[in-house]
Amino acid sequence: MAIACEQTAIERLIGYLGPQGTYSEEVALNIYRGEFGRFVPYNSICAAIQGVEGGEISECLVPIENSLEGSVNITMDTLAHEVDLAITREIVWSIRHSLLLKSGTKDVKTIISHPQALAQCRQYLSRQYPNAELKSVASTAEAVYLVASGVKGGAAIGSRRAGEIYSLTSVDDDIQDNPNNCTRFVALSRTPVNPGGQNCKTSLVCKIQGDRPGSLCDILQEFAARGVNLTRIESRPARAGLGMYIFFFDMEGSMEDDHVKTAVNAVKAKCQWFKNFGSYSVYNRLS
Amino acid sequence: MAIACEQTAIERLIGYLGPQGTYSEEVALNIYRGEFGRFVPYNSICAAIQGVEGGEISECLVPIENSLEGSVNITMDTLAHEVDLAITREIVWSIRHSLLLKSGTKDVKTIISHPQALAQCRQYLSRQYPNAELKSVASTAEAVYLVASGVKGGAAIGSRRAGEIYSLTSVDDDIQDNPNNCTRFVALSRTPVNPGGQNCKTSLVCKIQGDRPGSLCDILQEFAARGVNLTRIESRPARAGLGMYIFFFDMEGSMEDDHVKTAVNAVKAKCQWFKNFGSYSVYNRLS
Repeated sequence: MAIACEQTAIERLIGYLGPQGTYSEEVALNIYRGEFGRFVPYNSICAAIQGVEGGEISECLVPIENSLEGSVNITMDTLAHEVDLAITREIVWSIRHSLLLKSGTKDVKTIISHPQALAQCRQYLSRQYPNAELKSVASTAEAVYLVASGVKGGAAIGSRRAGEIYSLTSVDDDIQDNPNNCTRFVALSRTPVNPGGQNCKTSLVCKIQGDRPGSLCDILQEFAARGVNLTRIESRPARAGLGMYIFFFDMEGSMEDDHVKTAVNAVKAKCQWFKNFGSYSVYNRLS
Repeated sequence: MAIACEQTAIERLIGYLGPQGTYSEEVALNIYRGEFGRFVPYNSICAAIQGVEGGEISECLVPIENSLEGSVNITMDTLAHEVDLAITREIVWSIRHSLLLKSGTKDVKTIISHPQALAQCRQYLSRQYPNAELKSVASTAEAVYLVASGVKGGAAIGSRRAGEIYSLTSVDDDIQDNPNNCTRFVALSRTPVNPGGQNCKTSLVCKIQGDRPGSLCDILQEFAARGVNLTRIESRPARAGLGMYIFFFDMEGSMEDDHVKTAVNAVKAKCQWFKNFGSYSVYNRLS
């Protein structure tokens, strides 16, 4: 295992949610452009993250939040409960869905996609295809692949690029219900990068002591008192019973900035349980 | 429409996520036991909620949060963005999943269930059926129905009761990864009930003014200052762009209690947008 780990570190393998044609691949190709490394597709977000934790690959790129559907829970929960990794980059990416089918398909009976993509096109689907059956699969690219392989009366929701890869025709582009549809992806690694300078963010997750009304407020004040701007607060189940939560905080700035470092340490001192995902640079690629 | 609405009001139709054999049905049968009314199954959570909004049915029972998987986003988002309904009861229910198949099935190739049920049995599935394909459908009962209808090599995750209804055999009971697996269901109606007395909760959703660090803290202080105990804070996308959120608050007590009413009104005055789901009684049915 140690040898395998050394080898992958030398090779720089970058995992992503495959197969070919996913938004994750599109983002990975763009963000690592010009850098040395080889891409490894995984068939689930969880498997890609565990690949980094186990040393199979040196880093991975996974979605963490969509502007319409909210958190990608599997990413949040795996990061919180199952691995010990750092966030090393954040990429914000416009998601533009197309309805893709084999040329010649007349009657669309089944529409296949990732559950978040189906949810993001809910209004379009109920307006245009009220009677079609909706089927969830592990990725938009898998949906496109299945339709290309010949699901009778099947159509897929995926990127225009995936349609081109698998030789499908796009019937409608930009079918997402809301034009503000973008997804935040994060790159994960075993070691934090903690860069300084502009355009950095820092993330942590914690379990707050006690359940009295003011507990969360106390934590928020540690940030507010030092002028640390929180960009996101998200609760997830602590998995210890209904009504018990852990909180994720994203903030502007880096652990290299004194006010962020002091606030993070003050929060840590007040928590029952705490995990720092480190600081990372933010890239915006909105079209 | 007005006439149809009158008729349903007289009939008291209660919608739930069907078909026969869902956890929603199990909860509905239990919680409305002894009350006058007729049950109407819907094929999606969204359709059941819209049924109340449109006057087709007088109330509906839908899941809103699971202790392991967190919020049921479709319920939260429909309540916030698409309808104007009140919560009239809350029921906390133990979720106990079984692996169900047709007797004689030897090689399980496909495991079918609702995505939350698949997620809740993730560890069991990767331990016992690492090579099985996982398929998502709209409800656990639909999965059980599909396996009973003869999906080759298929097994379903659902309630033991659903297995009995559709004549499947249970291979393993209590296969959920975590024993603390329970779901909160809410009953929704067009009119709030706002009961007084013990064991009540009040819920609201709002968009907080401004995005400075202390905004959420200000809101939390309105509750804390009046001793109102928040049982849950949940952010969801505001759907206006990444980084913009609405916040759901659940609190102990009723709008009939002065301290709750004053705190809720103070919060309302500080918000850009605000919706009160009213106060309701809480029933615990944990086994």
